[in-house]
Amino acid sequence: MTTLADYCQSTAAAARTAATALATATTDRKNAWLRASADLLVKRAEAIFDANAKDVVAAPSFGMTAASIDRLTLTPARVAAAAEGLRQVAALPDPVGEVREGGTRPNGLQVLKVGVPLGVIFFLYESRPNVTVDAAGLCVKSGNAVILRGGKESLHSNTVLHEILTNELPNHGLPRDALQLVSTTDREAVGHFLKMNEQIDLVIPRGGESLIRRVAAEATMPVLKHYQGNCHVYVDRAADLDMAERIVINSKTHRPGVCNAAETLLIHAGLAERFAKRIADALRAKKVEIRGCDETRRFVPDAVPATEADYAAEFLDLIIAVKIVPDLSAAIAHINRYGSKHTDAIVTNDLAVSRRFVAEVDSAAVMVNASTRFNDGFELGLGAEIGISTDKFHARGPCGLRELTTYKYVVTGDGQIRG
Amino acid sequence: MTTLADYCQSTAAAARTAATALATATTDRKNAWLRASADLLVKRAEAIFDANAKDVVAAPSFGMTAASIDRLTLTPARVAAAAEGLRQVAALPDPVGEVREGGTRPNGLQVLKVGVPLGVIFFLYESRPNVTVDAAGLCVKSGNAVILRGGKESLHSNTVLHEILTNELPNHGLPRDALQLVSTTDREAVGHFLKMNEQIDLVIPRGGESLIRRVAAEATMPVLKHYQGNCHVYVDRAADLDMAERIVINSKTHRPGVCNAAETLLIHAGLAERFAKRIADALRAKKVEIRGCDETRRFVPDAVPATEADYAAEFLDLIIAVKIVPDLSAAIAHINRYGSKHTDAIVTNDLAVSRRFVAEVDSAAVMVNASTRFNDGFELGLGAEIGISTDKFHARGPCGLRELTTYKYVVTGDGQIRG
Repeated sequence: MTTLADYCQSTAAAARTAATALATATTDRKNAWLRASADLLVKRAEAIFDANAKDVVAAPSFGMTAASIDRLTLTPARVAAAAEGLRQVAALPDPVGEVREGGTRPNGLQVLKVGVPLGVIFFLYESRPNVTVDAAGLCVKSGNAVILRGGKESLHSNTVLHEILTNELPNHGLPRDALQLVSTTDREAVGHFLKMNEQIDLVIPRGGESLIRRVAAEATMPVLKHYQGNCHVYVDRAADLDMAERIVINSKTHRPGVCNAAETLLIHAGLAERFAKRIADALRAKKVEIRGCDETRRFVPDAVPATEADYAAEFLDLIIAVKIVPDLSAAIAHINRYGSKHTDAIVTNDLAVSRRFVAEVDSAAVMVNASTRFNDGFELGLGAEIGISTDKFHARGPCGLRELTTYKYVVTGDGQIRG
Repeated sequence: MTTLADYCQSTAAAARTAATALATATTDRKNAWLRASADLLVKRAEAIFDANAKDVVAAPSFGMTAASIDRLTLTPARVAAAAEGLRQVAALPDPVGEVREGGTRPNGLQVLKVGVPLGVIFFLYESRPNVTVDAAGLCVKSGNAVILRGGKESLHSNTVLHEILTNELPNHGLPRDALQLVSTTDREAVGHFLKMNEQIDLVIPRGGESLIRRVAAEATMPVLKHYQGNCHVYVDRAADLDMAERIVINSKTHRPGVCNAAETLLIHAGLAERFAKRIADALRAKKVEIRGCDETRRFVPDAVPATEADYAAEFLDLIIAVKIVPDLSAAIAHINRYGSKHTDAIVTNDLAVSRRFVAEVDSAAVMVNASTRFNDGFELGLGAEIGISTDKFHARGPCGLRELTTYKYVVTGDGQIRG
């Protein structure tokens, strides 16, 4: 009888073997698989909908809310978008084999720093089954074998998606075990995988903060952490107020439930009189609740009084904390104290002010006269992304194909030795 | 009364504050401090020797061997070399503020990826006191505050070196707490620091494998691991045998006790007859003990029979394991099985063979027709190094100034919002 530990061990060992083969697969083969898989997803949409329907029917028994059931549900548009995602990944440059730096040393040795895959990735995610397709595409293109562990709520959908993608691998000379879906929903399986730092090079948990914290605490290998963002917009004294309004509204209301949405607005005291009421009115027109400091409430008397907890909060909702600050230094200090080092924006036309803000705000992305919503792999030009790292180590901010790789030094000579 | 936990907490908090100030210090200030410190080390050499003499006198009571006491002992040449090291770091490019990539998106947003410090580094090291100087120079130049924890054997030496370097910081507008030396030798202090992942961004343990394993197991923040190397030289059928001999001898005997020295020699069966005895004679002339496979022993009958353990060993000594392999595939398989992914070399003049070796050997540095000894920060052009990473995550191979930094995205627009 196979125990759970044995199952996990053999899954990881198969991934390691597949990773070795996949590491040297040509870009042509990987792209051909991506494009063929995109076509197959559309061709086999009926089978996907049938499996998805089983998950949707069972969803209430898992206590899922209407919003999560909506995210779980696959529609023709969502399957087409997943297929299109694979085609976009095919169109991106291959980070494997990319020569990132290079030169010739005084002794004639040629030194190249060449992109190579990390190896085996353990990817955990929650209910949206299209993530199965996205993650598979990004991992295979970057030359990594992946062990996919989706939520129990989407097991039927994930199983058919995984089967379609995996069956297509050998047709392009790629190893089947490059993509494995954990077939058990036993939570202990996760614990087993997190102990295998000899077989697994990286864990990516994509889901709520409690999932990420649990994985970070248990993992014996590196974790690409993707915590939520407590993002700020600071409207400086030298801001164009039309631009400031546009950026605040977009940062807060374009998609309030995502990590790069703004949560706190800081306003320079010198323009509070001209701007505080104006922006409050504009935010309220978009149904945003305002929680303001005492000074804010002088101009916006019916704002809810803001607490310390509000400044630390990631509302992920139509709520914004507002604070009037005496100067740039106070704005920077507030951000570095309450922020989560994710994305922070300044609106100003003062170059010296923008230089200081950019230098002193310690965040993965610092925006000058642009919406916080631009901290995103597509928007910053990385192509697709597997997450937005809130760590400083390895990769910071959006993680695309290159962030799923490492490098090796390739040193070529004519018999050089050290003297 | 201050407890040990309080002491560690306040040390880390002071480092965090200093890191914020240091992150925006100009290159000019940092370089001025490096050059002034170099001059001061030479000027205050007598005070350094006095302190060092106390450590040397006490050394036998710590059970130190003659070789370790030699490493502990500071001489005028060693102090001069440490000072010269600081001047070399001053001459290297500053990784902070370096624009690593950049472009303009279709919507007009300028996106720059800019080097920034990691923040606070906890650096643990063993007996050589000149490491105090090296680590301080590299950390300050890369904009990181560092908490230095040397061995108890070198506490007097480290204290005076630290005092010289630290006292000079304010003269260049740099924060004193950027360099702190842990003043207690209590081992529990290490445990306290390893728990502080809010204050400390990276731990670098430099010393024996047991130190590194202890730190990796206990640390709650990333660890830059620097394990020893089990490095190989594979002499292919298409090798130039004079070159092969030169590379094998250099890789094995130039400095047998370091991580990039070769431990195993693999020989293609097709040239065993011409090469096995020849290289054995050359190695023995350098006093190297040969441990060979059965096939090797046909040509070198008095070689010690090699065991499985020999192929897995890092001898760090004048011993080499030798194996005759049927072909390139067997050589690659042997390296990927027994090696430590550190440094592996091939000697060949066959381009297709070298391409396969480079692609399939999964090591931080792959050498073609060059000694394994070149896997080193100076030799590969990084300037000084703080270690050679045996991890894949963040940095692989030699870690210089840039590997002590991360990056932020700086995005500048004219009011762009997402539609």
